Order: sequence, then structure tokens, then C-alpha cells
Amino acid sequence: MTLVEYFPTVLNTVHTSFGKMVEDELKRHGVEVHSGTAVDKIQQNGERLLLTGSSGFSATGNLVLVAAGAKPESEIAKGAGILLNPQGAIKVNQFMETNIPNIYAAGDCVETWHQLLQKNVYMPLGTTAHKQGRVAGENAVGGKREFQGSLGTQVVKVFDLAIARTGLREEEARQAGYDPLTVSFETWDHKVYYPGAHPFNIRVTADVNTKAILGAQIIGHYQGEVAKRIDIFATAIFHRMSVEQLNDLDLSYTPPLSSPWDPVQMAVQAWSKQLNKTG
Amino acid sequence: MTLVEYFPTVLNTVHTSFGKMVEDELKRHGVEVHSGTAVDKIQQNGERLLLTGSSGFSATGNLVLVAAGAKPESEIAKGAGILLNPQGAIKVNQFMETNIPNIYAAGDCVETWHQLLQKNVYMPLGTTAHKQGRVAGENAVGGKREFQGSLGTQVVKVFDLAIARTGLREEEARQAGYDPLTVSFETWDHKVYYPGAHPFNIRVTADVNTKAILGAQIIGHYQGEVAKRIDIFATAIFHRMSVEQLNDLDLSYTPPLSSPWDPVQMAVQAWSKQLNKTG
Repeated sequence: MTLVEYFPTVLNTVHTSFGKMVEDELKRHGVEVHSGTAVDKIQQNGERLLLTGSSGFSATGNLVLVAAGAKPESEIAKGAGILLNPQGAIKVNQFMETNIPNIYAAGDCVETWHQLLQKNVYMPLGTTAHKQGRVAGENAVGGKREFQGSLGTQVVKVFDLAIARTGLREEEARQAGYDPLTVSFETWDHKVYYPGAHPFNIRVTADVNTKAILGAQIIGHYQGEVAKRIDIFATAIFHRMSVEQLNDLDLSYTPPLSSPWDPVQMAVQAWSKQLNKTG
Repeated sequence: MTLVEYFPTVLNTVHTSFGKMVEDELKRHGVEVHSGTAVDKIQQNGERLLLTGSSGFSATGNLVLVAAGAKPESEIAKGAGILLNPQGAIKVNQFMETNIPNIYAAGDCVETWHQLLQKNVYMPLGTTAHKQGRVAGENAVGGKREFQGSLGTQVVKVFDLAIARTGLREEEARQAGYDPLTVSFETWDHKVYYPGAHPFNIRVTADVNTKAILGAQIIGHYQGEVAKRIDIFATAIFHRMSVEQLNDLDLSYTPPLSSPWDPVQMAVQAWSKQLNKTG
């Protein structure tokens, strides 16, 4: 199997250092990875397909799967006079109302309220679609519920790795007017003396002035509670918690599953240490 | 191996229905379980030890391991004139100060500030000891940090199961003046169409009037992110979140690891449904 990625590393939604680890995991399982490569052409070549691209890339295959992002399917809405944003996503408010009274919209075809950016963005995610759908449904039958917004929380499993993120990355935070510092921290997903511990990498982004947590990225073994550890950050960010407040949380511990300070807390401690060094 | 338990079910810190599941897991792995049994006597019987107890219980063994709770080791403190609570734990405030100036105490020998009960209790836990130790240390060298309190969050692995809890159980909540409702909910730890899904049981306790989450208990496969899912509750309770606010959280999802509504959210939805039925 060959994977061709346009961006410098695969899984462009997380830091390139994490993308590199994902590439290693793919290669370890026999996938040929060509990142930083643009596919220019796919053509029939006898019984097979021939792909050619940048830097002299070429490969043949029986099947080519194209995954090049999502586009909102909003033609019907447009035809009905409903306003779209520049990306073609349906404009909605937090009640999931369109500009036309009594017409609600939700899911991959609409803009999504970003809780930290405090504005609408186009960020189609299954979890968000479910929440928006319920809000739209409740309001359509006379309710008055507001969609509380997304943090762009996501997780993906690639062979034995899980890779997760929530909130803003450093560049996104800076663009949004924050003064972010990002610290990368490596530990184990549980006490290393107990069998089965795996490396666990966290990147924490927080604001230098308020110490509010702005985002986190985690990569580790998929059985290392990567997904629900990003959710501790997601829950903390939802409440605008600072790094110190996260450090004060009473989180669960047993040697086969964690450490007395959970890896998420060790990571924010590393953030504070780094701030003291540089600040 | 034989396990003798004084209480009606093992793992008395969680609901008896969970205790029963733990007993089944122990039996499935060849452990003979005698719950609701008091051991009266351990005596030498030739090369071996003979245990006898209530309801005609008797067993022989080469080794008897007694685990009958923790007692604070506070003799030195007492000798120095430091005040102890009725259980013998050292009395401290949230600065980890004892009643004698410049003497700080932390760990399994002290009382612990309970965040929901808003009073000191004796609840020795490793995670708490670490946090208290840092607070005591920081204040001993001139700092002014307050220990933020415990929720009694804990997790234990028993063969393939992980069992976790945080916050108050129904009886504890009622005694503390809350008006609690507890709902038990069973689901899967991830999308059942993806291989490796296991049953996942949650009990959620929340206040009927404020809808504030007061506590949660989870039992499931130890690779089903039981520990960090209890931590989502612990983080939510730290902020006095309501069941509806937890339902609004942007948590991570991918079929091998969760559902579009995470099990913790499905559980609070079940709580709300139950409240509407009974309320």
C-alpha cells in the first residue's frame, strides 16, 4: 500500500513531529509513505492505474482512494435562498437557525461555533453534527437551546497509535490574539515498572499571560487512554482552566493505568517550568 | 486462592452491583470468593495456616495477606503536641499547616479536604499525598498555596476489569444535604461494529434540584478507558458542572475508541431522561 500526502507530513491536523511518528508507524506496518508529494494525474495503464506527481513520483495500483478534505453539500440550501459562507457552508447562529425563519441546519454542511475563537468556522466532525442536530431538532419543535460550540476535539487510530487533539495549535492561538507557549513532553502512559507501558507524548499550548490552557495534542499507544486524556483537556478548556488548575485536579491512579500525577498533569507542570525559564 | 471479604460484596468503595461483577471476574480467574464473611481466627495448623470465621467458614493456606484498611501513623506528631482527629489523622488546614506554627503535614497520616463535602475527611490516597506534599513543601519555604481538595477519585484493575469512582455515592450525597438521583447505564466502550468492544457500566449521581453532577462510578474492561473517563467526571465535578454541561462537552471520537456521544455523555442523558420520568 502506498500513501501519498500533499503536506510535508501526514495528519496535517497535528504537529509535524507527531506526523513523523505516524509515518513511522505506517512504514512499520508495510505502508510506503510519500509525504510532501502532489499527485498530478491518475491514468489508466492497461489493467491498472498509473499515478504521477511532483518530484518524479509515480506508482501503479488497482485502486486509488482519494481523501482530500470535506466540502459542504449545500446546493439545496443555496437554491432556497439560504446564506452560505465563503467555503459554501450554511450560515447558522448558535440556535442552528439559518437566515430564513423556521429553517434550521446542522451537520457537515454548516458552519460551527468555535468555543475558543468565539466565531464560526468550517470544521465538520461527527460529534459536532450529533450535538448540532439535537439543538436544531429541539428548537424546531419550540425549544430554545444554544449549541455550546466545538473545540475541534478529534482522535484517530493508526495501527497501534492513537493521535488526538483539542483546542488551538500555537499558530492558530497566535492568530486569534493569544500569547501562546507550547511545551512538548514525553513520558509513559502508566508506571513503567508495570508491564505494557508505552511512550506517551503530549504538546500543551497555553497563554503566557493568563496561563489558560488553549490546546493539547497527544500521541501514544491506542490502549494508553490517549482519547480520554485529550478529553480531560477538552473538559478543562471548556471551563477556561489554567495549567495550575488542571494540575490540582483529583484524577484517578493505579500503576497499570497511570501515575500519581497523570501524564496530562506532568505535561502542564513541564509547561510551567518552561514558562519560568523563559519568562 | 481464596478471598475473604467482611462486607456483603468485595470492593466496598463502589456499588454492590459493581462489587458482584468484580466477584464474577475473580471467580472467572479461579479465585474462591467468600464475601459477607468475618475471619475470626488464624492459627498454625502443622505446616500451614488455618482460618476460621463466620457461617462455618474455614480454609487453609501457606500465606495470609490481611488488607483491612489504612490507619494514620501519627505517633510522632501526637508526641509533639500536634492535634489529631478522632481517627488519629493529623489535623491540617488547606495550607497543610498543623496547629503548631511552621510544622506542616501531608500524606496518609493527615486529614484531607473534600471538595464536595467542604470539610476534612480521612481518605488516604497516593494522588492526594503527592499534591499535599507539594503544597506543604511550597508553603514550608515561604509559599502560600492552598491544597484544592480531593474528590476521592480512584481506580483499581482486577484482572481484565477496571473499576473507578469519583465524588459522592448516593448515600454520601444525601447525608451531605444534597437531593441525589442515581442512574445506572450500560453501553459499550466503543462502537460495537468495531472489533474488541466490551460492556461498559456507569452509575451517575447528580442533584435533582441543581442538576450538578455529584459522583460517578464506572466498571469496564481495563483497556476501555475506564480510568480517564472517570477523570472526565472528576474534571467536571471540580467545576460543579451540571449533567447538561457535561453533555455539551466536545469530547473525542473515533469508532475504535468511543461513540459520537461518549459513554459518559450517554450516561448523563439517561440521567436526564430518568429525572423527567420521575420528576
